Amino acid sequence: MPNPVDFYFDYSSPYGYIAAMKIDDFAAQHGRSVNWKPILLGAVFKVTGAQPLPSLPLKGDYAKRDIARSARFYGIPIRYPSKFPIASQAPARAFYWVNDRDPALARKLAKALYQAYFVDDRDISSPDVTATVAATFGFKRDDVLAALNDPVVKNRLKSEVDAAIKLGVFGSPYIVIDGEPFWGVDRFDQIERWLAKGPF
Amino acid sequence: MPNPVDFYFDYSSPYGYIAAMKIDDFAAQHGRSVNWKPILLGAVFKVTGAQPLPSLPLKGDYAKRDIARSARFYGIPIRYPSKFPIASQAPARAFYWVNDRDPALARKLAKALYQAYFVDDRDISSPDVTATVAATFGFKRDDVLAALNDPVVKNRLKSEVDAAIKLGVFGSPYIVIDGEPFWGVDRFDQIERWLAKGPF
Repeated sequence: MPNPVDFYFDYSSPYGYIAAMKIDDFAAQHGRSVNWKPILLGAVFKVTGAQPLPSLPLKGDYAKRDIARSARFYGIPIRYPSKFPIASQAPARAFYWVNDRDPALARKLAKALYQAYFVDDRDISSPDVTATVAATFGFKRDDVLAALNDPVVKNRLKSEVDAAIKLGVFGSPYIVIDGEPFWGVDRFDQIERWLAKGPF
Repeated sequence: MPNPVDFYFDYSSPYGYIAAMKIDDFAAQHGRSVNWKPILLGAVFKVTGAQPLPSLPLKGDYAKRDIARSARFYGIPIRYPSKFPIASQAPARAFYWVNDRDPALARKLAKALYQAYFVDDRDISSPDVTATVAATFGFKRDDVLAALNDPVVKNRLKSEVDAAIKLGVFGSPYIVIDGEPFWGVDRFDQIERWLAKGPF
């Protein structure tokens, strides 16, 4: 069995969203599975000193345009959210809570949360909204809300973020294959070559 | 005649170098010419607050690896320079000085200067080194050195940089086609579609 692909992303990252809509099929074409790993760019940016895209002069304006165009290029629907960026603790905690029980279901939830934010413009930073999305997969809202406040779940996310930073993850999407890091949905062309033909 | 492609780059930018080695052929395949426009990222970064890649925690280490891998991916030789980044006034001024007389020759000089830095590890921030490279195209070293100190040439570069910033240019390579901006050599796939089929 070839190594799985490690897929780091933040729920507030539009390029992470685009990558999320593609990565499972993409990896499967090359016989690879994907480990989904939501992180918190806010914690990462404290280490790197980076700032959210909209706050950057010139680059912020470009990013807004590039995000829409890149989504069209990859054939992924997107609507720039009314509130951007958002804190992404709620959806990230919900993911790990489900993932420790049912990874396949967690992946479906992950995509549904991303689509709620980047297609339906729902503010998934709200525990209520995240719980409502999770409820469509059969979870009880109260169980989800309790999980989002559970110190065990909080620590689970925190240790994932710490491990990611230790590994050098500084952005979203950040994809690691056979130990090789690729940052950005625009590295899918290099990832494709790596998966098809090995290291280059 | 379709619009020319505007190609902004900094002589200290490895991704700009990779783009420079490809863009003329790439544009020509779609019947477009290219306006080469060296800029100074140092001046741009004063506006945007950005920092040179090597100084960025985590991202700097990744960039070094990604630059080498991207060069291999695009089939472009590269050697990480001993001194990086460098101030790029000398090669940029030399470019505009030649370009105002002979654009085709300026383009050849542009590529030779980039190769001197990113293949032969020569420090083109030095007027002497830039003049030596220019001399291989028949220019007299003393004429080049005089031009690099000529207030007219200095102002020419300054006004190009100011115009680029006004247009929103914040990185290298930064490519504008039919008014549409594309940042990064990793946008060549989107540029390809734009040139082949028009806006998307």
